[in-house]
Amino acid sequence: MDKFPASRRATNIEYAIRDVVVPARELEKQGKKILKLNIGDPLAYHGFPTPNHMIEAFYKGLKGQQNGYSPSYGLPELREAIAYDESQKINGGWDCKSDDVYVCHGVTEALQIIFAAFLQQDDKVLAPGPHYPPYMAYPQLFEGQTVEYSLNEENGWSIDLEDLESKMDDKVRLIVVINPNNPTGGIADKNHLKKIIDIAGKWPHCAVISDEIYDKINFKGNHYSTASLSDDVPVITLNGVSKVYYAPGWRVGYMAWHDPEKKLSLVRDGAERLLRSRLCASTPAQLGYLAGLQSNKDWMNDYTNKLLEQRDICIKRVQSIDGLKVTKPEGAFYMFIRITDEQWKSNDKGFVLKLLKEEHLLLVHGSGFSHKYGQGHFRIVFLPSPKILNEAFDRISRFLTV
Amino acid sequence: MDKFPASRRATNIEYAIRDVVVPARELEKQGKKILKLNIGDPLAYHGFPTPNHMIEAFYKGLKGQQNGYSPSYGLPELREAIAYDESQKINGGWDCKSDDVYVCHGVTEALQIIFAAFLQQDDKVLAPGPHYPPYMAYPQLFEGQTVEYSLNEENGWSIDLEDLESKMDDKVRLIVVINPNNPTGGIADKNHLKKIIDIAGKWPHCAVISDEIYDKINFKGNHYSTASLSDDVPVITLNGVSKVYYAPGWRVGYMAWHDPEKKLSLVRDGAERLLRSRLCASTPAQLGYLAGLQSNKDWMNDYTNKLLEQRDICIKRVQSIDGLKVTKPEGAFYMFIRITDEQWKSNDKGFVLKLLKEEHLLLVHGSGFSHKYGQGHFRIVFLPSPKILNEAFDRISRFLTV
Repeated sequence: MDKFPASRRATNIEYAIRDVVVPARELEKQGKKILKLNIGDPLAYHGFPTPNHMIEAFYKGLKGQQNGYSPSYGLPELREAIAYDESQKINGGWDCKSDDVYVCHGVTEALQIIFAAFLQQDDKVLAPGPHYPPYMAYPQLFEGQTVEYSLNEENGWSIDLEDLESKMDDKVRLIVVINPNNPTGGIADKNHLKKIIDIAGKWPHCAVISDEIYDKINFKGNHYSTASLSDDVPVITLNGVSKVYYAPGWRVGYMAWHDPEKKLSLVRDGAERLLRSRLCASTPAQLGYLAGLQSNKDWMNDYTNKLLEQRDICIKRVQSIDGLKVTKPEGAFYMFIRITDEQWKSNDKGFVLKLLKEEHLLLVHGSGFSHKYGQGHFRIVFLPSPKILNEAFDRISRFLTV
Repeated sequence: MDKFPASRRATNIEYAIRDVVVPARELEKQGKKILKLNIGDPLAYHGFPTPNHMIEAFYKGLKGQQNGYSPSYGLPELREAIAYDESQKINGGWDCKSDDVYVCHGVTEALQIIFAAFLQQDDKVLAPGPHYPPYMAYPQLFEGQTVEYSLNEENGWSIDLEDLESKMDDKVRLIVVINPNNPTGGIADKNHLKKIIDIAGKWPHCAVISDEIYDKINFKGNHYSTASLSDDVPVITLNGVSKVYYAPGWRVGYMAWHDPEKKLSLVRDGAERLLRSRLCASTPAQLGYLAGLQSNKDWMNDYTNKLLEQRDICIKRVQSIDGLKVTKPEGAFYMFIRITDEQWKSNDKGFVLKLLKEEHLLLVHGSGFSHKYGQGHFRIVFLPSPKILNEAFDRISRFLTV
């Protein structure tokens, strides 16, 4: 049978997480119950519901028949509220205007638009290793490529500036900072962010993407916005309703373009053309997010404190298990654990697959987040309840001590 | 100032509709009230609200905390309901299984994924002229290009098969059928659809996209599904909640892959990789759509009858105005009117801009839907109430008789 050929760009997309999800589904089909610590979705567990006042505002939009298309760049009142939120940050408020904000179908859509507008053949994106997978998958959709810079695990997964700088050349169009980082939970140092801006500024056409989708899940309160530190280098901040407002299934994110010297006017025109061509983000969902931004946010502290307690339970458990080691995450809800066990330290995928098979516990192997910098690790999500987290570590401990 | 360069693919996106929307906004800023017949969104007018049972099902999902990510291909129960709906069509039910259905953030996202998975450098997409603008904008995002085939205005905007066939070559990967058509409202003849399948089948790697997003808005009940007519040539059907379920702002659409001989297995694998990389469509919105699919649809006939009445008012008015001529649309809610007036017949954009300026009525110029095949026309939307439609034609009549 003659098969129709697929495009190179599509077949090149890797999806390492699937390598573990498929065997997990097989086990489920056999009637096994799998304990899952693999999904970065607060709603997949039970302790972090979407706040009711956001749900009711969403519903009010639905009932009020706000079910039509909205402006392609987002509802004006939401863009205004996001701009205000960016400008009022305790650590790093910056001069964000509503015109700088573009509302998207999640950060993944914003990323596609950014890469589509910036990249030409052989252009490069520098992204941290390990990283959230779309940073590797998407640039090559648009003829570009991703080059990883390393993070320093021993020093809180801080950005290795020397390594980053050594990888710069005139093909690098974007440097990506994920802060707090997924999968490590690392928070970038303010001085490191400044230096990244300096590095980008030495090259003629290099901007910075600052993915801050976990910004308010920051246990020491030391997260700093990248955009606030730049007077000239363009910085695009990414954020949305998914993580810190606990509503990922609503699919509303944004990009906010900080470009004091208007260097990006051509790129931005291209991004705006792309935005207009694809209509809009969900209209009533934008009203739910708006309510979140405009209402009291004390509940968010309660959620963060609960996450902090759960993090500490995991840290304690990791420290008590021979064969594991972890750098404490200071943000997000992930932990990127190093396997020091002799048998498994060079085979994280084998470790995860065997653990799944024997203990029915699902984690994600570190090499799924970076072939080069993620190996020898696995990622857990500490969103489940203390009881489930303890059960998970009981299983890991049993597996490693057999 | 040294501007950062934008990608060619982004700057190449044309957005003709903006050429008239920008001057309309200017007039609004000056305090003028503009009568708008330009927006293909039922919710932008007042006679076609989203049905309440769909809103309540959506809300139930929100309240039930179904606010997390859903499977990348869509909620299983929604995929099942869509497959059932495709298989039960009175005119052209086909053997659609839930695995054939992929739920997307509207048909625009489905289109991006299809083109990204199919197209390589210089591949071609054949699309009708005139057409919905993304069919021109998106293929070139992925190194392809769109070639238009003509529609026969004198014969109900039917597909000109001879012209289509003359444009086939081994670079054509996709033939697009928009049925009912936007902007013409034309319904494709069943025999023409069969012949398109035959034409595609003569070439080794050509599939068909059948955009049926307006399928149930069909005044003679003669719409036929393309997929049902093919035993071998792959047909991808597009549809969703936006138009016939009157909820475009919810952003839920789908693509259903009919591929009896599994010719697309490689392309489909690529499309699935793309789908997984971008997470999912709105989770609670999918539940709203599901309620629409599973509930009684008598309300839909009422809506269609109302549209038919409004169409007939417009037809009558057009026929009474010297300088206009129209082929009666048998589906969707658009009318593509030919300007026969000597002064304007070669300048549709000038006509629309001057009408906007003098009569404060906003239409879209035909060349915005195709430089080649749309000129000398304008599109109106007959969703507004009879009173507003009559007022609009009063203004057009006055403008042309001055």
